[in-house]
Amino acid sequence: MTEAVFETLAVVGPGLIGSSVLRRVREFPGLARRTIAVDIDPAVCARVQELGIADEVTTDAAEAAAQADCVLLCVPAGAMGHVAASVLPAMKPGAILSEVGSVKVSVIEAITPYLRPDIAYVPVHPMAGTEFSGPDAGFATLFEDRWCLLTPLEDTPHEAIEATLTFWERCGSRLREMTPAHHDRVCAIVSHLPHLLAFTICGTADDLADETRSEVLDFAASGFRDFTRIAASDPIMWRDIFLLNRKALLEMLARFTEDAQAMARAIRWADEEYIVDRIERGRKIRKSLIQNRQA
Amino acid sequence: MTEAVFETLAVVGPGLIGSSVLRRVREFPGLARRTIAVDIDPAVCARVQELGIADEVTTDAAEAAAQADCVLLCVPAGAMGHVAASVLPAMKPGAILSEVGSVKVSVIEAITPYLRPDIAYVPVHPMAGTEFSGPDAGFATLFEDRWCLLTPLEDTPHEAIEATLTFWERCGSRLREMTPAHHDRVCAIVSHLPHLLAFTICGTADDLADETRSEVLDFAASGFRDFTRIAASDPIMWRDIFLLNRKALLEMLARFTEDAQAMARAIRWADEEYIVDRIERGRKIRKSLIQNRQA
Repeated sequence: MTEAVFETLAVVGPGLIGSSVLRRVREFPGLARRTIAVDIDPAVCARVQELGIADEVTTDAAEAAAQADCVLLCVPAGAMGHVAASVLPAMKPGAILSEVGSVKVSVIEAITPYLRPDIAYVPVHPMAGTEFSGPDAGFATLFEDRWCLLTPLEDTPHEAIEATLTFWERCGSRLREMTPAHHDRVCAIVSHLPHLLAFTICGTADDLADETRSEVLDFAASGFRDFTRIAASDPIMWRDIFLLNRKALLEMLARFTEDAQAMARAIRWADEEYIVDRIERGRKIRKSLIQNRQA
Repeated sequence: MTEAVFETLAVVGPGLIGSSVLRRVREFPGLARRTIAVDIDPAVCARVQELGIADEVTTDAAEAAAQADCVLLCVPAGAMGHVAASVLPAMKPGAILSEVGSVKVSVIEAITPYLRPDIAYVPVHPMAGTEFSGPDAGFATLFEDRWCLLTPLEDTPHEAIEATLTFWERCGSRLREMTPAHHDRVCAIVSHLPHLLAFTICGTADDLADETRSEVLDFAASGFRDFTRIAASDPIMWRDIFLLNRKALLEMLARFTEDAQAMARAIRWADEEYIVDRIERGRKIRKSLIQNRQA
């Protein structure tokens, strides 16, 4: 039988990602012998208890942290620093602190002041998700064939990185290491900007006169449907991501806006070649994505 | 047995929409007793013949038009005027000319000069589609539960409108009549602008440095995947739509750009309330779409 990577895993924030990790541990061998789910909201704890996806459920993060050889923070990116501050003093010497924030530079900055020399900190980002959130939304196969990006610090101990890599590999993820800054730029263009655009167009439609608004809803064609699927994600999580990755995101938005204005100009002046060239690029990227098993 | 709406239906341009109409006629009663598929490309004609979805296949639009009591143009919106000019002189007195262009005002303007007083012209827009194109992409249920918008002219005979309504009703569509100008504004916000944004972000990603570009493909998260699904449509069709609906589309893009800049400003200055409000609107629209059976 495969030896478990962790003896006791504490998952703080059993939402979509956290509850998927808990389910994965329950359904697949070799991840953790025992799990503790932590949430500040007693209603969430009660629901996790009902779902039966953790061995123990508590609202007391410090109590859970004291028992764990790995504490995995799955809270919104904006809460990472605060939550890390509450669990770190209670953690066992030699334990691993990890977190799944979608933004790395600023989350690492928020956690760093509270770090202890005897705790290994391994930042990760499992690039998986759906439009749903909360403990009911998770499932054990969420991470399969999805990327999990590791952005270790210079002084992160090798064994802690290895344990984390093994853990996510057994979750079914494809793994890659990169620097936190590079991570944030890549995610700004492939994930954060698309979400910003999707939220914005929903707002634009909503702002139209009452009469037109009702027809947006009536006649939403496939184009708009795909946008609203993106835009139906958790508001607090996305607010945090936008604010915490603002530098890279605003840079990508500026690039995009230039390109959209160039497209507008091409449409106004009927530059057919330019328009077709831009559309062809979309097809090319789409094709590569399909070949790459990511779509 | 249900009487067929048309004796002989000529479908000019058996692509995604046209071949779906042909398949619908073949698989469901009450639409047309006989179909003729027309395409200028002999290879497309040969493929339609192989697929066996039309009773007759020809490259000669005039010859087909001379036999039909309804000629349905399913060519790209930019070709509508030209194709109408080639079929109208051959059409039987009392026959119906219809077309499925995604833009109505400029298609109607392009066709009007060639109209005959003894031919009834009924512009329609079945709001259905996939990311695929060509005669292989069609299927008989494409129009089910999708809107089909009719934008009749002031002098369109009542009986021709009724026949067209019955035809699309039997294709499974939900029907609505509106003016051509109103149609173009509604479609600009719900369909054309989302496609423009999706094409643009693919181009923006493609323009990034070689190193980052490869990672866009490697790490494309769900956000970007949905965008590229939209962006994988037919380039010529979308070029035509953008150019033919340029006024409404540029107006909607201007509104959207203002809103995106306001969002950028809120992110730069950490206006949390504004950001969350915009995200919440997206959720609201998404919810309405689901209730409305369009997503």
